[in-house]
Amino acid sequence: MPKPENVFIHPQALVESEKIGPKTRIWAFAHVLKGARIGSNVNIGDHCFIENDVVIGNNVVIKNGISIWDGISIEDGAFLGPNVVLTNELLPRAGFPKGLERTVIRRGATIGANATIMTGITLGEHCTVGAGSVVTKNVIPHALMYGNPARQKGWVCICGLKLSFDERNAAVCSCRREFVLKNGKVKLIK
Amino acid sequence: MPKPENVFIHPQALVESEKIGPKTRIWAFAHVLKGARIGSNVNIGDHCFIENDVVIGNNVVIKNGISIWDGISIEDGAFLGPNVVLTNELLPRAGFPKGLERTVIRRGATIGANATIMTGITLGEHCTVGAGSVVTKNVIPHALMYGNPARQKGWVCICGLKLSFDERNAAVCSCRREFVLKNGKVKLIK
Amino acid sequence: MPKPENVFIHPQALVESEKIGPKTRIWAFAHVLKGARIGSNVNIGDHCFIENDVVIGNNVVIKNGISIWDGISIEDGAFLGPNVVLTNELLPRAGFPKGLERTVIRRGATIGANATIMTGITLGEHCTVGAGSVVTKNVIPHALMYGNPARQKGWVCICGLKLSFDERNAAVCSCRREFVLKNGKVKLIK
Repeated sequence: MPKPENVFIHPQALVESEKIGPKTRIWAFAHVLKGARIGSNVNIGDHCFIENDVVIGNNVVIKNGISIWDGISIEDGAFLGPNVVLTNELLPRAGFPKGLERTVIRRGATIGANATIMTGITLGEHCTVGAGSVVTKNVIPHALMYGNPARQKGWVCICGLKLSFDERNAAVCSCRREFVLKNGKVKLIK
Repeated sequence: MPKPENVFIHPQALVESEKIGPKTRIWAFAHVLKGARIGSNVNIGDHCFIENDVVIGNNVVIKNGISIWDGISIEDGAFLGPNVVLTNELLPRAGFPKGLERTVIRRGATIGANATIMTGITLGEHCTVGAGSVVTKNVIPHALMYGNPARQKGWVCICGLKLSFDERNAAVCSCRREFVLKNGKVKLIK
Repeated sequence: MPKPENVFIHPQALVESEKIGPKTRIWAFAHVLKGARIGSNVNIGDHCFIENDVVIGNNVVIKNGISIWDGISIEDGAFLGPNVVLTNELLPRAGFPKGLERTVIRRGATIGANATIMTGITLGEHCTVGAGSVVTKNVIPHALMYGNPARQKGWVCICGLKLSFDERNAAVCSCRREFVLKNGKVKLIK
C-alpha cells in the first residue's frame, strides 16, 4: 500500500488509510482502517484504533490506547487524554443491533485521561472533561465537567486554564484572553 | 502452530490456543494464550489479551482493549464494550499472592464501555452494566446497573432495551417480549 | 540493539532501553522507550507503554495496558492493576503546553484496576487505591482509598489486607504484623 506523504508511521503501526495529512505521526501498535480521514499535524499514540467512518481534523492530540469508532468526528485542536473511551451504541447487546449514534468532539475540546463518553453526544468547543469522568449528555462550550456522571463545575479558557467570572460576568485569563458570560454562554471579547 | 479452522486471525494477532470455534474473528495486536477455550462466532477486538484459564461461549462480542484473566468465564451472547476492565485478585500486593477469585458473566449480559468489574462477582443473565461503572457485588438477571459504585437503576429486556413494569408488575418491550416481575425476579412470559 | 541480560523480552515487544535489571519480563505488544530505567524482577504486561523519563524500581508488577509517562516514578514492590491510567499534565490543551508534573508511587503501594491518577500526586507507601477510583490528591501511607473522587475509607497492611484499629489505636493483621495509629499515621510495631 502506498504511504501517505510526509506522515510518520512507526514501523509497528498498521495504517490502511491514505487520507492522512502531512506532519501527522502514528505510533507503535496503532491501527488505522482504510476509510478514516485524518488531518495534518495529528498525533496518534501507541495502541490506538481508528475505524472507517471517522473524521479527525488538524492539530488533534490522541494519546495512547484510544479507539475511535465509526460515527465519531473530532474537530481541529481537540485533545484526547490517555485511554479515553468513546462509544457508538446505546444499550448494546450481542445479536441485537440498534444502529450507531454519532458523537462530535468540537474544536479545541479536551477529554481527560480515562474519561468515558456515552454515545450521541456533542462536546462543545473548548470544553474540558476531567480525568475519569463519565459524560452522559451534551457539554456546552467552555464548560468544565467532571464526576460520574459528569456535572458542570466551572468554565475554562481557550488555553485550558480555569476562568473565574466576576459579579459583572467578566473574566480575564492569565493568558490575557478576556471573556463575558451572557445567557449562559461564554464569549471571547479579546 | 496449526491454526484452528474457519477462524479469522488477523496477521498481526498472536493466537496460541487451538480451541477456538468456527467463524470466530481475532483482530490486530490481540493475544490469546494457549489454554483459552473460545466458542464459535466470537469477535475479539484489537489489543485484547486472553489468558489461559478462560472459557468464552458462542456469539460473544469482545470489543477492543480488554484483558480476560485466568478464572473468568463468559457465557453465550455476552457483550463486553470497549476497554471493559476485569480483575481476578482482591486487595492485590506485589509479593503477597492471595489466590485468584472467579468471575462469571452470564448469558446475554452487557458490560458497558470502560466499566470495571471487581473480582469474585457473577453478572446475571441479560443484565446491563452502564458505561464507566464500577461493579462491586453480584448483579441479578435483567438488572440495569450504573454508577461508582454501581447501583440498580432499572430493568432491561433480553434485547437490551429498558423495561417499565406497570402496577401489576407486567412489562411489554417494544421488541414484543413480555415479562412479569415476581419476588424481585424478571420472568419471560412470551 | 543489544538486549539487556537475563531479561525476558517477548518477541512481539519493542524494547529500546538497555537499563533493565535481571529477571524482568516484558510481554507482547509492550513498548519501552530508550530512556526508561527499570529495576529487576519487574513484570510489564501486554500493551504497556513506558516513556523515557521514567524510573521503575525492583519487584514492581505492571499489569496490561498501562502507559507510564515522562515524570512518573514507581518505587520497589508497587502493584499497578490492569489498565491503570496515569497522567502528567493538568488542564491539558492541544497547542497550549503547560509543563509536566511529577507523580510518585511509593514503595509497596497498590493501584487497583482502571483507577485514574491525576498528575502531581504522591501515593504513599503501602497505600491501596480501589479499582475504578479517581485520585485527585496525595494519598498517605497505608490508606485505603476509593470512589470518584477517591476518599479514605480505611487502612491497609503491608500485605494488602484491611486493618481494624481498636480503641487503643492498635491493630493486628491476620499476617501477624502489628501496627499503631498515632497522629494520623500508621506505624509498624512488629
